[in-house]
Amino acid sequence: MPAKDVPDIVVSRLPLYLRALSFLAEEGLQVISSKELGHKLGISPAQIRKDLSHFGEFGKQGTGYNIQYLRDQLRRILKVTEEREVALVGAGDLGRALMHYGGFAGRGFRISLVFDNNPQKIGQKMGPFEILDSESIETIVADRGIEIAIVAVPAEAAQEVVDALVRAGVKAILNYAPITVKVPEGVHVQYIDPVIHLQRMTYYL
Amino acid sequence: MPAKDVPDIVVSRLPLYLRALSFLAEEGLQVISSKELGHKLGISPAQIRKDLSHFGEFGKQGTGYNIQYLRDQLRRILKVTEEREVALVGAGDLGRALMHYGGFAGRGFRISLVFDNNPQKIGQKMGPFEILDSESIETIVADRGIEIAIVAVPAEAAQEVVDALVRAGVKAILNYAPITVKVPEGVHVQYIDPVIHLQRMTYYL
Repeated sequence: MPAKDVPDIVVSRLPLYLRALSFLAEEGLQVISSKELGHKLGISPAQIRKDLSHFGEFGKQGTGYNIQYLRDQLRRILKVTEEREVALVGAGDLGRALMHYGGFAGRGFRISLVFDNNPQKIGQKMGPFEILDSESIETIVADRGIEIAIVAVPAEAAQEVVDALVRAGVKAILNYAPITVKVPEGVHVQYIDPVIHLQRMTYYL
Repeated sequence: MPAKDVPDIVVSRLPLYLRALSFLAEEGLQVISSKELGHKLGISPAQIRKDLSHFGEFGKQGTGYNIQYLRDQLRRILKVTEEREVALVGAGDLGRALMHYGGFAGRGFRISLVFDNNPQKIGQKMGPFEILDSESIETIVADRGIEIAIVAVPAEAAQEVVDALVRAGVKAILNYAPITVKVPEGVHVQYIDPVIHLQRMTYYL
């Protein structure tokens, strides 16, 4: 797979294609044209064809894409064919919401460790999770070989948590704290920022 | 402003430019080239220049963009120069996290109403908010003329809540529930989906 040749902006659209194809497959559809898919996603058909062409030939001119096949290929390309363990840091309101979140199942991720620094929470059970001491992130996450983490702590604690995760060998961090964190090269960070989505809509009001 | 001529994909990048410029302004920087901005965002400088050219001339060849000026123009374009009221539906774990979220301030949004359908929560205070009955979404949101809502309810309740918001006149909905909702034309929906962000990173693992 020519990973290093693919622009990040192309990679950023692949999960959107995967999600749309998964919905379509669930609805029982079998084939979709780049035009129909583009209409659903608000992305031009030419862009979709160009994005996918980085990874091979997925459809024939005029016949559209086989939905299940393209979905499976995208899962392979995005490396989510099997469930990956995720460490969650922060067992506050947001952390609890993430523990109960129904959207991870079947999409490649499973929260398997939860950390917090509140002595009243450490050692307690929350649903299926025993809350672990944030002080032990570095050892436990490294021992388990977990590469993915979600940071759901207050802004002022986020950088410290991220540093510990990086030392534990985490390579992909999803940060909910409203702060930009610093990571060394080779570690990826994505931000959940509701304002970005809201501003994208106010444009049209 | 030639709003209807601008592709949605261009609009979707404007909040990213605004966030980056706001950070740079806070750091005390005054000028940035499209090349430097592109490097920070992982977007090509040509793309940035092309995106911004939809809205006017914001920089001179070779001198870069005036950060504060471009930030203010983007705020105007995205219509977030003043704070807009937001109705939040769902006072569970996620709803509480959003009530405390520090990332709205100064970026155009303020949660001003909170609804829930749990009789034990209705009428109770959570921080500065009195929890209102979801049954009253249609009347109260309409009365206040609120156009923006955040949906933080379980998947099975999301469509019903969205329908009530639409009847109340809401035009922009940020949906955290892991389900695609149906809205009439003219109503915008954005989804917060952590898996999209996670998959964007697993590609590189």
